[in-house]
Amino acid sequence: MAVIESYAGKINRKLNKKLRIIDVAAGREKADLVLKNATYVNVFSNELCHDDIAVAEGLIVGMGQYDGIVEVDVSDQIVLPGFLDAHIHLESSLVSPTEFAKAVLPHGTTTVITDPHEITNVMGTDGIDYMLQATEDLPVDVRFMLPSCVPSTPLDESGAILDYRAIDSFYDHPRVQGLAEMMNSYGVIHNDKEVVSKIVAAQAHHKKIDGHAPGLQGNKLNAYIAAGVYSDHECCDLDDAIAKLQRGQFIMIRDGTAARNLEALAPLLCDKYVERCMFCTDDKHPNDLLEKGHIDYIVKKAISLGVDPIIAIKAACHNAARYFLLNNRGAIAPGYLADFVIIDDFRSFNIQQVYKKGVLMCDHGVLTDFPAPEIEEYLSKRAHDTFRLKHLTAEDFRDARPRGVIGMVPNEIVTTDAGYSDHIDAEQDILKIAVIERHRNTHHIGLGYIKNYGLKRGAVATSISHDSHNIIVVGTNEEDMAYAANRVVELNGGIIVAEGERSTAEVPLAIAGIMSDEPLVVVNEKLEDAKEKAFTAGVSRGVDPFMTLSFMALNVIPTLRITTRGVFDVVSQQYV
Amino acid sequence: MAVIESYAGKINRKLNKKLRIIDVAAGREKADLVLKNATYVNVFSNELCHDDIAVAEGLIVGMGQYDGIVEVDVSDQIVLPGFLDAHIHLESSLVSPTEFAKAVLPHGTTTVITDPHEITNVMGTDGIDYMLQATEDLPVDVRFMLPSCVPSTPLDESGAILDYRAIDSFYDHPRVQGLAEMMNSYGVIHNDKEVVSKIVAAQAHHKKIDGHAPGLQGNKLNAYIAAGVYSDHECCDLDDAIAKLQRGQFIMIRDGTAARNLEALAPLLCDKYVERCMFCTDDKHPNDLLEKGHIDYIVKKAISLGVDPIIAIKAACHNAARYFLLNNRGAIAPGYLADFVIIDDFRSFNIQQVYKKGVLMCDHGVLTDFPAPEIEEYLSKRAHDTFRLKHLTAEDFRDARPRGVIGMVPNEIVTTDAGYSDHIDAEQDILKIAVIERHRNTHHIGLGYIKNYGLKRGAVATSISHDSHNIIVVGTNEEDMAYAANRVVELNGGIIVAEGERSTAEVPLAIAGIMSDEPLVVVNEKLEDAKEKAFTAGVSRGVDPFMTLSFMALNVIPTLRITTRGVFDVVSQQYV
Repeated sequence: MAVIESYAGKINRKLNKKLRIIDVAAGREKADLVLKNATYVNVFSNELCHDDIAVAEGLIVGMGQYDGIVEVDVSDQIVLPGFLDAHIHLESSLVSPTEFAKAVLPHGTTTVITDPHEITNVMGTDGIDYMLQATEDLPVDVRFMLPSCVPSTPLDESGAILDYRAIDSFYDHPRVQGLAEMMNSYGVIHNDKEVVSKIVAAQAHHKKIDGHAPGLQGNKLNAYIAAGVYSDHECCDLDDAIAKLQRGQFIMIRDGTAARNLEALAPLLCDKYVERCMFCTDDKHPNDLLEKGHIDYIVKKAISLGVDPIIAIKAACHNAARYFLLNNRGAIAPGYLADFVIIDDFRSFNIQQVYKKGVLMCDHGVLTDFPAPEIEEYLSKRAHDTFRLKHLTAEDFRDARPRGVIGMVPNEIVTTDAGYSDHIDAEQDILKIAVIERHRNTHHIGLGYIKNYGLKRGAVATSISHDSHNIIVVGTNEEDMAYAANRVVELNGGIIVAEGERSTAEVPLAIAGIMSDEPLVVVNEKLEDAKEKAFTAGVSRGVDPFMTLSFMALNVIPTLRITTRGVFDVVSQQYV
Repeated sequence: MAVIESYAGKINRKLNKKLRIIDVAAGREKADLVLKNATYVNVFSNELCHDDIAVAEGLIVGMGQYDGIVEVDVSDQIVLPGFLDAHIHLESSLVSPTEFAKAVLPHGTTTVITDPHEITNVMGTDGIDYMLQATEDLPVDVRFMLPSCVPSTPLDESGAILDYRAIDSFYDHPRVQGLAEMMNSYGVIHNDKEVVSKIVAAQAHHKKIDGHAPGLQGNKLNAYIAAGVYSDHECCDLDDAIAKLQRGQFIMIRDGTAARNLEALAPLLCDKYVERCMFCTDDKHPNDLLEKGHIDYIVKKAISLGVDPIIAIKAACHNAARYFLLNNRGAIAPGYLADFVIIDDFRSFNIQQVYKKGVLMCDHGVLTDFPAPEIEEYLSKRAHDTFRLKHLTAEDFRDARPRGVIGMVPNEIVTTDAGYSDHIDAEQDILKIAVIERHRNTHHIGLGYIKNYGLKRGAVATSISHDSHNIIVVGTNEEDMAYAANRVVELNGGIIVAEGERSTAEVPLAIAGIMSDEPLVVVNEKLEDAKEKAFTAGVSRGVDPFMTLSFMALNVIPTLRITTRGVFDVVSQQYV
């Protein structure tokens, strides 16, 4: 915890550190670290430069001829600034922020801007506080954009309803950069006062406001931007991106697990446009993080698509830093954070070392260990106790009325309207689906049917269901559905594959029901095992058994969705 | 004066305005102003775009098809964002900020960043307050960088001595952007705690710190930048500029009255470097403002030197705005201030109209009148009463001891060491020079001699003498010197050309002794008349009779200078 100090004390403390920095920069004192004979990317002059790079007090102090207490010869390598992810929901990794940091540091990520939208939908502002505490002093600097849409829509039954007043005090936190993706573009454009107030308040705090407006055009786009939305990460094609860029929005080129836009948007990575572009992932699931990497993967892919490496690097570090007013990172220059990524060359792009604030955090894949931040007991308990619902029985899922059938589309999150059904018919691939409200013990259970999921035996349940994270369960019979849902609750959250009222696979997600307390590799193994069990139980191999399911409750994407109040037609805005 | 309102009230007030902006942007309501059929510079996509530009509540709300309450067809013209001067001392115009605004608006300037260094050397923090009040709500938005070096050197006898604590509370003012040019680079590099504290405090307020370090190189430059200095406007050649840019400094390309660096630095205005470059003037004297213009003159000159017009425009508006975190100006896009400059074409570059926040302020050279801001009585009186010294007599200037002779160099501000003298010899062009302390009635009068000024009769006195603005007087006899100095005091400041103990010309500068209360045209006429009278009295035509004189007390430029304590050798740091 920070010591309470006077303003004069604060200045004196900073002065003391600054005097040492100046001494080292001027060559009067040895540097803490010198990267000798460095070839480095200069994001200001847009070229490779050659010099020693001197570090003191965690900052770069100079490029030139320097002696250091520690000297590392980096001839024949290339030194890059640490990478930034401009927009991610950390919860998507399914692990704690500490485990996330361990996963991305070897990939050169030293700063991420997270929107704790998922946990906040479960825990309200306690979710923001939890994530702030869980990321304090991590060797990946985690900055926050405050969730703008909790709940995502008025139809959601989430764990909290946050207006501008509810999140306002967070703007004073030194790691809060602004208001996260304003998904309710309709509300903005049509002057929903509660929605616009959130933007106004963020502006009053001189903070950034990120956008989320796929395909928005013309005067509507003008209205959305004029309201004060400064960026977009939802551009799927070049025309969309250029229209937004021309109107002053920064473009976050997204390439994550669920959505991959780099190939379509790579033409932005040229002299004419790059100043307004940066990279983000939005979400990164465990196996994607482990197998492909993070921002480094986007840079590599961009270079392989023919993008000038210097431009790709700029988009991976400097441009996001400037956008978020993190003006002391994203470049190799005096006064900047000593966050370095050292690679062999641009073609192979093997990351050999990663430094955070001058400390070697990853050496040829071997991570320097670091402790998890302490989280106060109240918050930790609160995060591990987020299920408020009674024991469920098969009776809760039985129902004779005809209900809408959601038509799942392989590899997509859109659905079709597949008619009605009044009973499960696994042979015809008509399964029962339910969403169970789990935040306020309302016993609201929305029932419906789903086609094309493929399950032939048992049930699958998950407490990851966007964006309210109620329990979603699909089954071939009500007994297994009840078992799987109850088991999710017993674990304080998780993913369950069940058959004969026993689990065949379990992925515990005890932090707010959406993240695990275990390391990424363990979570990934359990998850891959659970997927395999789900496939064995019949789930179509073209479907991600849990991710696709987790979108079935997201009542903003056409056509049919399942909510805590039944099957909902997004197009007609009616329950069916 | 602003009404005191609650936070909720502030949000509601801003919300109300925002809802109207959204209504207009979405096309549901007519715009206040539409520039129809505009061709405009898009600083994001770096091209000319074509559309209507709609304005509401002083902001641009959209580009597209719009109807307006007022519609102005701007076909066959080019619409540019309003220009910014990234660094100027407003006092250099010799007029009040209101008169300055009237002079620069027709040239398309809509924002200036001023360093009130001159008036603060006279009035201390009251000088900053005076300038803040004198610029409130002007149609040229005046933003402030706080003077970092008052006095300029420990040898100066200025009107105030300001440490970091003295200026600290100004960082909370909404128009203060940071700490102005840190001229004491030696102090920074050599860890002068008082100097470095100022930088540390500015950083603690998340503010910008401008630099001033001509020719600084290598590890010293690293130390200066690592200390936290983000820009430089003193680059005279390309190598100097690129060395600073490579280390992360923003380069303010200066082209003003006293120093003109555009030609040398024009090669920076290309894709590779422009993102880090902007324009400034540093100082603009009356005739230069009237005859050449302001930032528009730099843009025109850059284009004539072969710079891409879009790049020149970006440096003239957008880049300075981003550097100073004035993120709602310097571009034509939704949410940006409706500050427009409308020109005929890039070749002739005739400014036809200038809009500030959507209001037509200048139409084909005809200015829309506006009131001068009210200044509280205390400050106004204080500004007009800054001379604290006794009546002077010829005896005060008589002296038989040998004193150093300052060798003036035509068209330069450097001087030579021209030996010693113990008497005036106008035939040999050896004149007496004196600096009279005028802030604290110390009766400190520094005496010396000067060569190459050329005066043959009478005396010349001025209360503009950098940076402390004591009275400087040159004469062929002590009686006229005393008369001229006393006359400066009687006028509460000004420039006097005298002969036979009568003024032949007077330029009253009653605001702190460095600015006039009269309009720019009047001041310019008086000044030109005084120059002519000075030339008639013998001053060499290669010398600016008052500007050159005003630098003779600036004890940081080699070789000899006159101070309130005598002739000073800047090189040996000794009085001679």
